[in-house]
Amino acid sequence: MKILGIVAEYNPFHKGHLYHLKKAQEIVKPDLTIIVMSPQFVQRGEPAIISKWIRSRIAIESGADIVIELPTIYAVESADYFAKGAMTLLHEMGITDLLFGSENGDIEQFIEIANTIENHQEQYNTAIKEAMDQGLRYPDACNRALSLLLNKEVKTPNDLLGLSYVKEIIHNHYDIRMHCIKRTNDYHEEKLQEIASATSLRKALHAHIDVSSQLPGYQYYKDEHLYSFSEFFPYLKYTILFNEQLSSIHLVDEGIENLLKDTIKKTDNMEDLINRLTSKRYTRSRIQRMLVHILLNNKKEDVPAMMKIDYIRLLAFSKKGQLYIKEQKKRTDFKIIANISKHQHPSLTLEYKAATLLSLIYGDAHTEISSIPYHE
Amino acid sequence: MKILGIVAEYNPFHKGHLYHLKKAQEIVKPDLTIIVMSPQFVQRGEPAIISKWIRSRIAIESGADIVIELPTIYAVESADYFAKGAMTLLHEMGITDLLFGSENGDIEQFIEIANTIENHQEQYNTAIKEAMDQGLRYPDACNRALSLLLNKEVKTPNDLLGLSYVKEIIHNHYDIRMHCIKRTNDYHEEKLQEIASATSLRKALHAHIDVSSQLPGYQYYKDEHLYSFSEFFPYLKYTILFNEQLSSIHLVDEGIENLLKDTIKKTDNMEDLINRLTSKRYTRSRIQRMLVHILLNNKKEDVPAMMKIDYIRLLAFSKKGQLYIKEQKKRTDFKIIANISKHQHPSLTLEYKAATLLSLIYGDAHTEISSIPYHE
Repeated sequence: MKILGIVAEYNPFHKGHLYHLKKAQEIVKPDLTIIVMSPQFVQRGEPAIISKWIRSRIAIESGADIVIELPTIYAVESADYFAKGAMTLLHEMGITDLLFGSENGDIEQFIEIANTIENHQEQYNTAIKEAMDQGLRYPDACNRALSLLLNKEVKTPNDLLGLSYVKEIIHNHYDIRMHCIKRTNDYHEEKLQEIASATSLRKALHAHIDVSSQLPGYQYYKDEHLYSFSEFFPYLKYTILFNEQLSSIHLVDEGIENLLKDTIKKTDNMEDLINRLTSKRYTRSRIQRMLVHILLNNKKEDVPAMMKIDYIRLLAFSKKGQLYIKEQKKRTDFKIIANISKHQHPSLTLEYKAATLLSLIYGDAHTEISSIPYHE
Repeated sequence: MKILGIVAEYNPFHKGHLYHLKKAQEIVKPDLTIIVMSPQFVQRGEPAIISKWIRSRIAIESGADIVIELPTIYAVESADYFAKGAMTLLHEMGITDLLFGSENGDIEQFIEIANTIENHQEQYNTAIKEAMDQGLRYPDACNRALSLLLNKEVKTPNDLLGLSYVKEIIHNHYDIRMHCIKRTNDYHEEKLQEIASATSLRKALHAHIDVSSQLPGYQYYKDEHLYSFSEFFPYLKYTILFNEQLSSIHLVDEGIENLLKDTIKKTDNMEDLINRLTSKRYTRSRIQRMLVHILLNNKKEDVPAMMKIDYIRLLAFSKKGQLYIKEQKKRTDFKIIANISKHQHPSLTLEYKAATLLSLIYGDAHTEISSIPYHE
């Protein structure tokens, strides 16, 4: 039996994602496709534009069989953590094949680099640390370290994420075949193209431009809130000014709390705040992730327990997916749950906090408790 | 030299206050009149309707000579603390006479009650504790204790406040003559009368009804924000939901944090929240004061240091007041300051936090630093 695993955010699910999903299934020819998906908050450190329940439903209707939740504590993190969370869960779900898109497109290169890092872990980490001490941001520091180790570079965010997946699989000796396909477009371009990027589609959706032709499942958007990080600015300003323990919050490191307290007084909107905080040292995503953890009041000391995941939360599944889940429950030690109330875990408490945060602006947090996975 | 002291909130300064001030000066015939006034947040636990700078300026233009700030930590407190803060500062300012308004109007009765309490402190406190253990609210518990001690009752909030002033003066053996005049109207009535109450005037101001005839100094209201507690609801909701250390906050006692966390989820506005929390046990003012301290994230452990006041902050003064201040500086150990930046004190940090909180909705907190007292 071949089980294909894919990591996604589907923010929003668009024609490029559909293409990627179909292409992956064409290449791997799986019996079943499992997606691990970022929940309400995504890796770039902001809420996804639309609820995870809608995004996962559309994925099922577009040909996936099971969508599981990547816990927020892994989703709102740098590439290595993000990958660790995603690979752990896909492995527990029994995938045999992983496929990811990348600018590079050559899986052998990823494997070579990952093996080299695995065999020179200490040297690699030391080189990263030295580069960061010189003021380089983490992605650039990784590349400096790679250059030193084997004269290679991994330039784009997607290649870096892909490398993290491969490293995680190799490091854990997971029995998973790896595949990689070249991405069809650069997701960072902002002009709507034949296959539009997620960034441009989010802009279009917020501007009420009709992009239904680009978005499978567009009918589900009608009655849904479009989430926007900028709306959380008042809460962020309040908590940065009044929380006296900012430095106890996850990702608030190296004295940045003083910069935060100074900067927040000078600005009245999220975009300006993020621009002022982004620097040679801190990428925009790094800053935004930190702001999300501040809003969630997510303490450093609570993170290790959150990261010890022992459950798999289902967001949506097909009929075929349902049968597979029933069997997989017997094969994994992880508890597979359809409802958040069926399991106690610090990471699920965080999911509820994330829903509560969104509810401050968009209403009812109770959906996080009452929602059950979409299923055919 | 006769120096008259008056405790006030002037929320807002209206014709009744003007009448009271003139009447007090008629009775005492002072050389100088000093007001100790609540700052941005008042005893009932909400922001005053308009800035302390405006309120104190109008008081000077209406015949007072000096207005000093009652620190927030004393202003947003029950009668005994409120009175302790006010009496300490008026005493340090060298007043010879205190005059307050009350429903009762008989100073001898207040003195008799205060003396009895002073001489039976333990018995009185025990009786209060017992009454509160039976579920009575603090004002009712005080009355139960008074009934037991000397078969007397003090029924209204103003009489209770007045009694607290008298108790404080007697307890500390301050050399201050006490006077009391009957209040001309009940401030709790909501209909505009010949001399309107503060409550009805606040309602009228928020409803944009022209009440200029009732408000001396109305011209200063033009360009000013009218503050409203209800606007702080989003911040309150956020912090009650996300602050994991609510019970460490001043006035959050006896496990009320759980009730708070439950109740906040059920409501979407301040008025409803306060109504739901008010009970036989907790008066509306007690609840509102607690909510103010939650918004300010004012920790229990910081309160004792805040309450050790060693300064007097000037809000406004007349020419005559200025000459007196110059002399009084030589006579008091308290530091008399005209600008918040001239002294370091936890209580002044709280004033800055109060200004910061207001600035989230009404703009620039910097006025707290840049403002200097109004003077002729």
